[in-house]
Amino acid sequence: MELTQDVKWMRRALKLAEKGWGRTRPNPLVGCVIVRDGEILAEGYHAALGKAHAERAAIEKAQSHGIDLTGATLYVNLEPCSHFGRTPPCADLIVENRLARVVIAVEDPNPIVAGRGIQTLRTAGIEVTTGVLETEARQLNEIFIKHITTGKPFVILKAAISIDGKIATHTGESKWISGAQSRKLVHRWRSRTAAILVGINTILQDDPSLTTRLHGKRDMDPARIIVDSKGRLTPQHRVFNADSKAPVIVATTSAIDPGQAQKLKQASATLLVLDGPEGQVDLQALIDQLGESGIDSILLEGGGRLNEAFLRAGLVDKIMLFMAPKIIGGSASIACFHGEGTELLTDAIPITDMTVTPVGDDFLIEGYPQKPGRQPQQLAGPSTGSTPERTT
Amino acid sequence: MELTQDVKWMRRALKLAEKGWGRTRPNPLVGCVIVRDGEILAEGYHAALGKAHAERAAIEKAQSHGIDLTGATLYVNLEPCSHFGRTPPCADLIVENRLARVVIAVEDPNPIVAGRGIQTLRTAGIEVTTGVLETEARQLNEIFIKHITTGKPFVILKAAISIDGKIATHTGESKWISGAQSRKLVHRWRSRTAAILVGINTILQDDPSLTTRLHGKRDMDPARIIVDSKGRLTPQHRVFNADSKAPVIVATTSAIDPGQAQKLKQASATLLVLDGPEGQVDLQALIDQLGESGIDSILLEGGGRLNEAFLRAGLVDKIMLFMAPKIIGGSASIACFHGEGTELLTDAIPITDMTVTPVGDDFLIEGYPQKPGRQPQQLAGPSTGSTPERTT
Repeated sequence: MELTQDVKWMRRALKLAEKGWGRTRPNPLVGCVIVRDGEILAEGYHAALGKAHAERAAIEKAQSHGIDLTGATLYVNLEPCSHFGRTPPCADLIVENRLARVVIAVEDPNPIVAGRGIQTLRTAGIEVTTGVLETEARQLNEIFIKHITTGKPFVILKAAISIDGKIATHTGESKWISGAQSRKLVHRWRSRTAAILVGINTILQDDPSLTTRLHGKRDMDPARIIVDSKGRLTPQHRVFNADSKAPVIVATTSAIDPGQAQKLKQASATLLVLDGPEGQVDLQALIDQLGESGIDSILLEGGGRLNEAFLRAGLVDKIMLFMAPKIIGGSASIACFHGEGTELLTDAIPITDMTVTPVGDDFLIEGYPQKPGRQPQQLAGPSTGSTPERTT
Repeated sequence: MELTQDVKWMRRALKLAEKGWGRTRPNPLVGCVIVRDGEILAEGYHAALGKAHAERAAIEKAQSHGIDLTGATLYVNLEPCSHFGRTPPCADLIVENRLARVVIAVEDPNPIVAGRGIQTLRTAGIEVTTGVLETEARQLNEIFIKHITTGKPFVILKAAISIDGKIATHTGESKWISGAQSRKLVHRWRSRTAAILVGINTILQDDPSLTTRLHGKRDMDPARIIVDSKGRLTPQHRVFNADSKAPVIVATTSAIDPGQAQKLKQASATLLVLDGPEGQVDLQALIDQLGESGIDSILLEGGGRLNEAFLRAGLVDKIMLFMAPKIIGGSASIACFHGEGTELLTDAIPITDMTVTPVGDDFLIEGYPQKPGRQPQQLAGPSTGSTPERTT
């Protein structure tokens, strides 16, 4: 009975957490519900970077209404912090307010915090339960978890494809394969990620501005990264002229013409010269460098060659393919993955935890590519949501 | 209230109808439930070609238990027949047994019967309701409906694809892209269809026997049709040597070597010489001829060139793509549709009524390709299931 209640309130906390979508970066999405005798006393969520943590938001709301929290249970999808960061520690605040029990979905993956928040609570005699809806909670903050544990960005490969896996006709026409609802969802994800990454062919073909077309979110535009081995980008392209303050980063090689490089710098682009094999940009080095510069997430928006290069290099963490109900066909059409491929089916790249969800007339395929030479990624950590670890 | 009951019992009739799967060809799948005061009096279904119709099966079952059917309601997914075919008319039998009401999903599309069964019932004072679960009922018998109304076979394009729409690596390896449950479902569909159709490249690459590997169904093996423009098939290929009595039909052109043609005939193949443009087999003529010879349904199992040729010719009625959770990639891999494709996105072929269903680890994509120059096909007929036509 208690377990069902725990799941119910944790689901509510996750729902609240999502309200911070696109505004908390590089912080995680966190929601908090405080309950006593089956009734909500207060709720809160981390609304934006620099604003109160979810636990503080909920507790301060209760205090502002003169509600005493003694003996209540607090639900939060991430372990309360124990360190002084931008705000004082939430664990101390929970202890001060004499809550009786804290239910946590995921222990903080941040190595600075890991387990210390829980320790603070338990030392103060508070009952702590962990692992409730852990799988869902890990997925909600998969960007944060990847970046905090590895220092590298979480890379989401996004494409609009036909049923037969094409992203454009053989003439390069690609507008629009997917429907309006899918495109809206893409803009929502652009607002969530720190950067959009495309190949130079996409720029030369479509000249996109790569901004987030959601109302009132212009300041949240992600950085724009263009992989351009030979330096074919010009300051006349729309990425430089769109009404957006988001930085433009050009990943290139020493093959770029120095005059051209100068022009791009004058147009306020950041140039990264990263020589890889066969005159291509070293993608692994690019990802490492972006991670070090604080970019926690990348929306990789193709084309086909770059998609396959990223996938084969084991650099894609998640795929999001919007499959439209149409067949393009044609052996010369542009495929979503347009590289060397594999001879053997055993070398095909398995996708784990794959789901297919209707989005308008389209279907969104989501999943996690298995990295070369590694075991499948697990959404859930060592303890899965079905049998929550319970300790007091 | 009555409507909800109607839907409930019609759903049961459809479930019963499915029990005849693969054994009623070229007859439809029909199930029947007889109900009075909310209780089932008897049930029946058309078990196999030559066996009793569903209505007769149900009524005879009631009679064998000494149950009087006076005033009862009969649910059946297809209009009861009024003509003497292999069995006496079901409509008369219903009248004789003094049922009060008959609920029908789909009026018989067979031009010989169309509306006469209903007329017989109404003339006898029986209340008739039509259109209950019509969409589902039409889909269940889409093969029968197509063949009886056009004389042509219902063509189902089936393929096992990766997420990126490939059916083989560039070396031709294709075993196995999809999982065991998907392959089992394919064999279930092979048992439902009158013929399997493949291109010669599939024979040369994989040398399949093209039989139905379901226990105790060997006698239901579909005919095997090979499109082989130049006559490269030999009597040594497994389609001739597999333990199956199903006929082998070779569609070829006048380019075939006469000696080779003679050898195939001696191996008991039927040769159809159908010269089309550019030395290819005339696919439209092939379909017409197969329909005339009584083949009501074809499972088209590729490869990529044949798939696209059928699709572009408007000869595919339904697609069934088993999408496995893996990415093959590669611009040289074999795509599910591997023909000329289209320059313009507006020429992409829309798929209507598309659904995606999990099958084991795979996802089954089903839908209906829009035919060139025609409006989208409708699963439902002129009156859709949501507002059943009701008359007495």
